[in-house]
Amino acid sequence: MPEADYQLIIVGGGPAGLTAGLYAARAKLNVVLLEKGTTGGQVMSTDWVDNYPGFPEGISGFELAEKFAAQARRFELPIKLEEVQSMDLAGPVKKLFLASGKTLTSLTVILATGARPNPLGIPGEKEFTGKGVSYCATCDGPFYRGLEIAVVGGGDTAVQEAVHLTKFATKVYVIHRRDQLRATKVIQERAFANDKIEFIWNTVVTEIFGGSDVEGIRLKNVKSEEETILAVKGCFVLIGIRPNMEMLPLNQLDNDDGFIKTDKEMQTSQPGVMAAGDICSKEMRQIINAAGEGAVACISVERYLSNFK
Amino acid sequence: MPEADYQLIIVGGGPAGLTAGLYAARAKLNVVLLEKGTTGGQVMSTDWVDNYPGFPEGISGFELAEKFAAQARRFELPIKLEEVQSMDLAGPVKKLFLASGKTLTSLTVILATGARPNPLGIPGEKEFTGKGVSYCATCDGPFYRGLEIAVVGGGDTAVQEAVHLTKFATKVYVIHRRDQLRATKVIQERAFANDKIEFIWNTVVTEIFGGSDVEGIRLKNVKSEEETILAVKGCFVLIGIRPNMEMLPLNQLDNDDGFIKTDKEMQTSQPGVMAAGDICSKEMRQIINAAGEGAVACISVERYLSNFK
Repeated sequence: MPEADYQLIIVGGGPAGLTAGLYAARAKLNVVLLEKGTTGGQVMSTDWVDNYPGFPEGISGFELAEKFAAQARRFELPIKLEEVQSMDLAGPVKKLFLASGKTLTSLTVILATGARPNPLGIPGEKEFTGKGVSYCATCDGPFYRGLEIAVVGGGDTAVQEAVHLTKFATKVYVIHRRDQLRATKVIQERAFANDKIEFIWNTVVTEIFGGSDVEGIRLKNVKSEEETILAVKGCFVLIGIRPNMEMLPLNQLDNDDGFIKTDKEMQTSQPGVMAAGDICSKEMRQIINAAGEGAVACISVERYLSNFK
Repeated sequence: MPEADYQLIIVGGGPAGLTAGLYAARAKLNVVLLEKGTTGGQVMSTDWVDNYPGFPEGISGFELAEKFAAQARRFELPIKLEEVQSMDLAGPVKKLFLASGKTLTSLTVILATGARPNPLGIPGEKEFTGKGVSYCATCDGPFYRGLEIAVVGGGDTAVQEAVHLTKFATKVYVIHRRDQLRATKVIQERAFANDKIEFIWNTVVTEIFGGSDVEGIRLKNVKSEEETILAVKGCFVLIGIRPNMEMLPLNQLDNDDGFIKTDKEMQTSQPGVMAAGDICSKEMRQIINAAGEGAVACISVERYLSNFK
């Protein structure tokens, strides 16, 4: 086996990275997890998690993230506060170049850098995230039972989730900056046929406001420049997500616009490099499958290591 | 859309089925989960679970299974005590034939029937399961720190896990009924080179005994018929697993010896039929990835339903 500082370096400390780390530490691999900020990833800033199995009454995102990290630490996973700036993942020894100037080498790497939703970038959005502003209908839809809400976006996800949200909300306004949707035909038709959905065309949201929770949004028609107020209790921002790919050598990894392609065992196109969680090219991004992928990625690492000559 | 009793029927109430059910109930699908025995699957009979993320100190299998079920019930997932005897999964309306004589129809099905480890079928095995007898090295290995243990089997899994277990145990006896291993060469070589591993050839285990926990096993040489006693605190039975496939129409589903093939979105070869958990053809069978697959399977069901003309 070639020489390297570690058998495994995990990049990213969200549910995928921490679960991979839990499995790696339990398996007594020579491992380190690198996280540039705080562990927990997006979960950390999620107000309430109702659909992570094992918590019948739900759990706060903060508390769940703490539990993930505590469990990994219990098995003595070393977690280092380091920002990875770039990597060279080709060949048997992987090199990670840190912002601190150090270079770490490893026989395998698990990429678990995550993704983030595209924000609108308007006043009130950040302030009311988790208090009426949401980026995930599957996660938060059931909290809006009997209320009126807005969905921002015109793609497949936005329109499909608007239909989904009518199961809870009494009224769903879909706000789109163009005069037609990008969503596929059959999904469009289902939305147009739904009495609870009202489309507001050629319109952008310019502000989200409220007291302790969202009470309304300010709209602007991009053609007439007319401004109006819409009283809604929720605003789902569904205008795509982007991968945290800034530190990834995308020329060394098969990817879809920065989302890393893997097989079912979470192996990337680069031998010895696995990926798990939201950074992966896939359909669904939830805590539970991110964690599942982290565990699978670790087992693939163990298999890769055990086949090293 | 064609007519059917349900939009979704989930077969099996382990972590995969219950997570699919949790997601389906939250999404307000017209769904039912069918389970022939008690919910929880194999988790129910697992003594202690240390590697399901979210429980830093670990949790008893019984309690974790209860939490999974309680969470699904909180979102009003209907769980019915019914045994499925056979199915017809071809065409747009799936038919499930129950032991009770009833037939249920559904637009989609999630197969989550699980798998079970092959047992040795010897005295003491059942009695000491979870008290020294284990079928999963990844799950239970760390509980045997500083102890002497036995591994039964000669395939890839048995030999690879024997090496893995030397990280915890002071001595690992590998008991194999033949005079050579079936495991691949590189894995064999690693085991032969390991000082802590001792092979006992041409030998079968005939009894597992102890007090409150395992204290030893009785061995029999199949050539000389000589019987001996081996004092070990643990006995890992790693002689393969078999899918719970008795009720599955295997002629309608691509499969590997009964394990159902799926793509990354948990879709089987049959449109409208997803699979999740241990019944799937895959490398790793852990609670966390079974649950993750259940959630993904449900989202694939929703996508399939939303594209129905």
